[in-house]
Order: sequence, then C-alpha cells, then structure tokens
Amino acid sequence: MTIGIGLLGLGTVGAGVAAILATPAGRHPLVGELELRRVAVRDLNRPRPVELAAELLSTDPEAVVDDLAVEIVVEVMGGLEPARSLILRAIAAGKPVVTANKAVIARYGEEIAAAAARSGVYVLIEAAVGGGIPIIEPLKQSLGANRIQRVSGIINGTTNYILSRMAAEGAAYPDVLADAQRLGYAEADPAADVQGGDAADKIAILAGLAYGGPVPREAIPTEGIDQLDARDIAYAEQLGYVVKLLAVAQAMPSEQAMPGEQAEQLLDVRVHPTLLPKAHPLAGVNGVNNAILVEGDPVGQVMFYGPGAGAGPTASAVVADILNIAGIRQATGGRGTQAPLDPLLAAGSWRDCQLVESAVTSHRNYLRLRTSDRAGVIGAIGTCFGEAGVSIQSIVQFETQSAGGAEIVVITHEVCEANFRQALAAIEALTDVQAVAACLRTL
Amino acid sequence: MTIGIGLLGLGTVGAGVAAILATPAGRHPLVGELELRRVAVRDLNRPRPVELAAELLSTDPEAVVDDLAVEIVVEVMGGLEPARSLILRAIAAGKPVVTANKAVIARYGEEIAAAAARSGVYVLIEAAVGGGIPIIEPLKQSLGANRIQRVSGIINGTTNYILSRMAAEGAAYPDVLADAQRLGYAEADPAADVQGGDAADKIAILAGLAYGGPVPREAIPTEGIDQLDARDIAYAEQLGYVVKLLAVAQAMPSEQAMPGEQAEQLLDVRVHPTLLPKAHPLAGVNGVNNAILVEGDPVGQVMFYGPGAGAGPTASAVVADILNIAGIRQATGGRGTQAPLDPLLAAGSWRDCQLVESAVTSHRNYLRLRTSDRAGVIGAIGTCFGEAGVSIQSIVQFETQSAGGAEIVVITHEVCEANFRQALAAIEALTDVQAVAACLRTL
Repeated sequence: MTIGIGLLGLGTVGAGVAAILATPAGRHPLVGELELRRVAVRDLNRPRPVELAAELLSTDPEAVVDDLAVEIVVEVMGGLEPARSLILRAIAAGKPVVTANKAVIARYGEEIAAAAARSGVYVLIEAAVGGGIPIIEPLKQSLGANRIQRVSGIINGTTNYILSRMAAEGAAYPDVLADAQRLGYAEADPAADVQGGDAADKIAILAGLAYGGPVPREAIPTEGIDQLDARDIAYAEQLGYVVKLLAVAQAMPSEQAMPGEQAEQLLDVRVHPTLLPKAHPLAGVNGVNNAILVEGDPVGQVMFYGPGAGAGPTASAVVADILNIAGIRQATGGRGTQAPLDPLLAAGSWRDCQLVESAVTSHRNYLRLRTSDRAGVIGAIGTCFGEAGVSIQSIVQFETQSAGGAEIVVITHEVCEANFRQALAAIEALTDVQAVAACLRTL
Repeated sequence: MTIGIGLLGLGTVGAGVAAILATPAGRHPLVGELELRRVAVRDLNRPRPVELAAELLSTDPEAVVDDLAVEIVVEVMGGLEPARSLILRAIAAGKPVVTANKAVIARYGEEIAAAAARSGVYVLIEAAVGGGIPIIEPLKQSLGANRIQRVSGIINGTTNYILSRMAAEGAAYPDVLADAQRLGYAEADPAADVQGGDAADKIAILAGLAYGGPVPREAIPTEGIDQLDARDIAYAEQLGYVVKLLAVAQAMPSEQAMPGEQAEQLLDVRVHPTLLPKAHPLAGVNGVNNAILVEGDPVGQVMFYGPGAGAGPTASAVVADILNIAGIRQATGGRGTQAPLDPLLAAGSWRDCQLVESAVTSHRNYLRLRTSDRAGVIGAIGTCFGEAGVSIQSIVQFETQSAGGAEIVVITHEVCEANFRQALAAIEALTDVQAVAACLRTL
C-alpha cells in the first residue's frame, strides 16, 4: 500500500525530497512506500536538479493539495502566503502536513495547531529548525520528563558562517557578507538572516515546544550581526571568548500553580550576538553548522549538532516527518487521519507562556567604550558601575591607533538589565567617554 | 485517567524515575497522569534516596509484573536474569515495557522484539544508550531517510572519565582507575566498562537500529582501555590527537539487492581505543559525557551530546519512553496494547546485517615500537610497510630515558587490515625491533 505525497515547491529542499523518494534502496523500507504524486512549481519550464515526469508538475498548488491521490501534503515553498493558506487547506481536507516553513510556524503555529487538532491530523515541522538535526521531535518526545531551564542555540547557518570567517580571518562584516553571497551561503537580500529574524522564528518554535505554550514571535528582542565590528570579535578572542549569534529561551521564576494546575511560565527569549567562553559547548560550532543546547532538570545539558541548512540535510528532516506519518498510517491501517492524536507527536499547547520585560532579566555584558586617554577614566567608569550596583569582572584598556583616544572594554558579572542600563546612562554622560562603541551579551 | 507504572528495581535509576513521577509540576502534563503502583526491590529495609509508601514495595518482581494495576513495566534492575525473563513475562501479559538494560537488549533484543511484535506491545529502550541523550528514538524516527554510513561514539562514561583525566594529568591508568572507583565514577568490578563490553553492548544496539537488523553482539571485536599506556596518550597529544574509547559501526560495500528487495548489509563494528584528530567533533567530549556521531546520506554529520550516565539523565530517558507509551495509550483510548504498532516507534528488523572479517576492513593505525637506537632502523621499518603496500603518514622517533633504546611511533594512512598485519609481522621479525609496545586505531 503506497502513500501519496504532494509536494508544494521544488526549490532546493523540494528537489532534495524528490531525490530521496526516487532512491529508496538502503533507506528505511517505508521510504519505498512513498509515492510522489503531484508537485506544485512556479514555472513549468525552469531547469531542475531532479528529473520528474512532466504530468506530475502543476502551477496550481491548491490543485495539488486537493488532489485525491495526495494523502500527505509537504510544504517546502517558503514565505508566509500562500504557504499558510495551503497548509490550512490541507488540514481542512483531513490531510496531514509536513512543513519546513519556520516563518509560518513561528507566526501562525497556534492557528495551525488548533486547526490540526480539530481535523485530527498531524502537522510535523522537524525541518523548520536546525536543518538535518533532529531537534523538534526530541524536544517533543524525549525531554518531556524535564523542567527545561534553558534552550540556547546557534540556529542560523548564514550568520554562523560569516562570524566564523570574521573570527578566523579578522575580516570586516561587509567583506565577508559579500563573499558569502558570492558563494551561495547568504542570499541576495540577507536581511532575514543577518538581522536575526530567522533565528527569532526558530527560537520562538523551540521555546513553544520546550515550555508547552506559544511564544509571541513579534515580541522577541532581536539583534543581528549586521552592526558587529570585527574589533569586538578580536577583543573577545583576546579575553577568551568567541562571538556567536545566539538564540536563547530561558525560564524565569514564575508563580507557583495551584495543585493540579500548570503555572504560567515566564520566559526570557532573545536573539543577539553573544560572547561565549571558548570552553562552552557551543563555542566550537563553526561554519554553516548549527547546534542546540537544552538544559533541564534532571537531564542536565544535552546538545544536538549538525548541518543547519542545505538541500540534503533539510530534506532528510522532511522525509523523517513523512515517515512518521506513514508509520502511524500503516499502524492504524490508513485510519491515521481519523484516530485521536498522540499528544507527544501532536505537541499541543498545555501552558501559558509570557515574555518578561527585558528590564527584569539578568545577564553578563560586554561593553566597549571610546574614551579620552586620561588617567582616572577607568576609575570614573568603575564608579558608575559601582553606584548602579553592577559588579564587574574585568576592565581592560586596549591599544588603539587613533591619537588621543583609548578603547576600554568592560565585562560585567551577571547583573539586572535595569541596573546595567542605569550604569550605562551614567557612563555615557561622563565627559571622558566619547562613545559607547559596542554593547553585547556574554554567557 | 491515570496510567499504572510498575518499577522493577529501585537503585540509582529507579530512584531517579520515582523522583520524577513524584514531582510532576513544570514537566509535561502527561507526567501527572503516571502513577507508581508497585515497585520490586531486593531488600525491603534498605535505606533509599526516595520515600515511598511501604505497601508499594515488594521483593517479588513477578508479582509486580503480574499486578493488574500495573499497565507499563519499567525494568531498571540491570543484569541478564531475571531481567530478561521479567521483560518477556510483561510482554506475554500484553504490557508495554520500558528498559534501560543494554546488556539484555544487546543479547536478547531479537527475541524480545519478536515477542513484542507478537503481543503488539512496545518495548522502548532510550535509556539503554547514552544516558539522558536522546539517541535511540532519533535514530528510529528522525534519520530513516538516510543511508547510514557510520555511527561512532563515546558511549561509556567511566572510561571517558578515566581517559580525560589520564590526558589532563599525564597519570597512569591504574592510579586514575583507583581514584575513579573512590569517587564513584567506576565500579568495584570495573571489567564491563574498562574492557569495552559495555560500549560493545551499546554499539550493537545502535548498529541494529541504524542498519535495520540485529548485530551479533558476541562477534564484535572489543578492546578496552585497561592495557593503555599513558605514554601513548602523551605521544598522541604531541602528534595532534586525543585518545578515546570509540565504538564504531560502519557500512561496508554490500552486494546490490534485486529491485524490491533489501540487500544484506555488511558491517564493520568494533570497540577500541582510538586516536582522534583534535578538530574531530568527538575529540572535545570529556569527563563522563557521551556523544554519538551519525553520518548519513543525505544528512551529513549529526552529533548528539550529553551526560552518558547518572540517576537524573538516565531517569529522564526512562520517563520519556513511558510518556511516549502513555501518549499512544491516550490517543487510542487505552487500546494501545491491541492496536498494530507504528513501525518507526516499534523499530522492527528489516535487513539482514552481517559483520565482516576484520582482515578485509581498512583503518588508519598508530604503532609504537621499542627499537635499538641505531641508524637505519627507521629505514628498515619503512621498507616493511612499503613491501606490504602500507602507506605511512608519519614516522617519529621519541626521546626515551632508557639507555640504548629508542621509541618509534608510526601513523599509517588508511590501509587494509590484512596488509597492515603482514607489515607488522615483518617488523616484529626485525632484529632491531625489541617490541611492538602499542598498536591503536586512528581516525
């Protein structure tokens, strides 16, 4: 009994999926049961890396979703619309959906999950985060015994490639970006990657699964790497750190729930360039690789590492989801869409999650100041921190070429963001401080 | 509707499971549905880290399995018998089983899987390999689209702790072992860990899942760390390597199957101390941590990292399995034990796997020779390798304290084991070679 697959999109990932389905030998035997029955493309005449029979192709994605021969809908077209509407259309028709679309899931995941629950179909999203790394299903199925303290990760391959090269070569951001675009590691319009939006989509999804409730995507404080100065990477290196674009979701102390009720979960979720100590498990993740670190009680730290993007890895994750649905269909004799959903695989929401105001969060900070080269400057800066109750780990003055000026780098201990902001305002007002040249977070 | 859990064993892991079940707040809501109804212990009066009502405890494990209130049997007693018989008894009674018992699964996995398929119940084993690291379910559910090329890992925490300390301190094996025993990182009888048997159990399980067929446990060539000389760790370090106890399962070229049939899969499976280049993803895994690297087409390299042992991490994996079964039961309205099994979660065997003769495998090798300190020795050794068709990467003579002798370390390129053995025999016959002091594999 073969299972009919309808593919929406035949770009990099779609072609990767088609290539796997066309070569089942040596893979899980269920791969051989999957039959590609209809493929929606934008342009019928575009040359493609995979050969498909012409009658499979259609420029009408709704027709692919509606096709009676299509039993599982695989959305790999990307973008918000028509992807969202097509996913909802498939669900309404009682067809399970596999999607790699992090932008849609991060924004409309709640709507889609509710529709899926009503129709009793699965919507699986392993490929939406971390490319080929199994992280979505492990979060749903393998870590449920834990109280999750933190999920942090390097989850954007483009920016990690750029940062890795900036660190290795001491090169400036615009130069490496241009080279990455030339090599195909960054898109012509790199905004979603370099400004952190893609990572914010993904951490919203991971946080929602780890903490059991949807996280408001648009409220996530997001800072990219497009303002990052090569100098800060070099200074960080000298101080024992590497700079990575980190996405973090962290549990904050929340009110106790009544017995039998789940408490609301307060979360600190954010995306920003971050100094990691060189010994940190995520510090050695370079190039287009991704890694996600999950910290929980009682598991401790577990890390998932691998290729964060690319046709093969992402297609591997898409087909894994298809296989999971196919396996359930086979077990239930094709009644999969009518049976109630396994709550772990379906991953419904079971807790109210709220983001906290950043003023009440606590972090370690890295601060680079341009100052006049005069005795007493470090003392004045130290006093500003002290008066705001901000404890300092180190203050280092670096040599600069510019005459008459100095650069001072401060790394704080973990301090409340409000206190840090207060110190920063006082420091900016110092006559000897010419500019706050950089302000980054530190783990 | 709560689900009744019967626990066989209340040692470290069992107590960890009981602790999670007793504190459901903040965990997945299904944890709150799990009720510990019966616990088999060896001695009713032994003090324990968890407090349990006296009426839950029993010294009769068969009574726990048979108890009508017990719906899922959790086997965490360890050892081959009575664990195997109790698992089979639970299956025969139609009760799904969760076990952390790698020794039983590595030896009787086929028998147990067949019985489980007949009874239509799940036997889940996430805790059997890698402690808290999700690796079993990801292998079953998330990588099925791939042709797996290799699964390699550091999967024994005790030996990794010992090797990490030997490397950091330049200490000798017996001294670090004694200290590890004192600190509780090694057992009084450390044989299963230090001789590699525990790692062989685990790689047999991983290989069986990755390649879809049972692997004959007793046929796995296994070498431990108990003969390892601190000198080889030091020399490896100078040459750019770290020494780890690596478990490897690797696909060998196999005959093509007829269309529609799955080919037999030839495997090279082994456990031995191995030199890893310092940049290798597994090289930085230290202490009691474990990591498993899976290489496949098209996913590339994915790695799973975390605490490989301990009450909390292992209990996290055990409860994850319980939750998966509970989730399916909830979805099927308690008919979970009667419904056909999802082939991915059940992970039946679908291919015939055979181990190859080690003579036809290929590896890089590290060889340390004690020789006389005479000109021409290196030339003679090089000639032996050349005549056997073994290509050499480096030959280095190290300083030794002993008068009149030298130590020569050779690292080969990847060569056929038979050729290497031929070269080794010729080298041993050289009058200037006093002894083959060490012979290790290199990645």
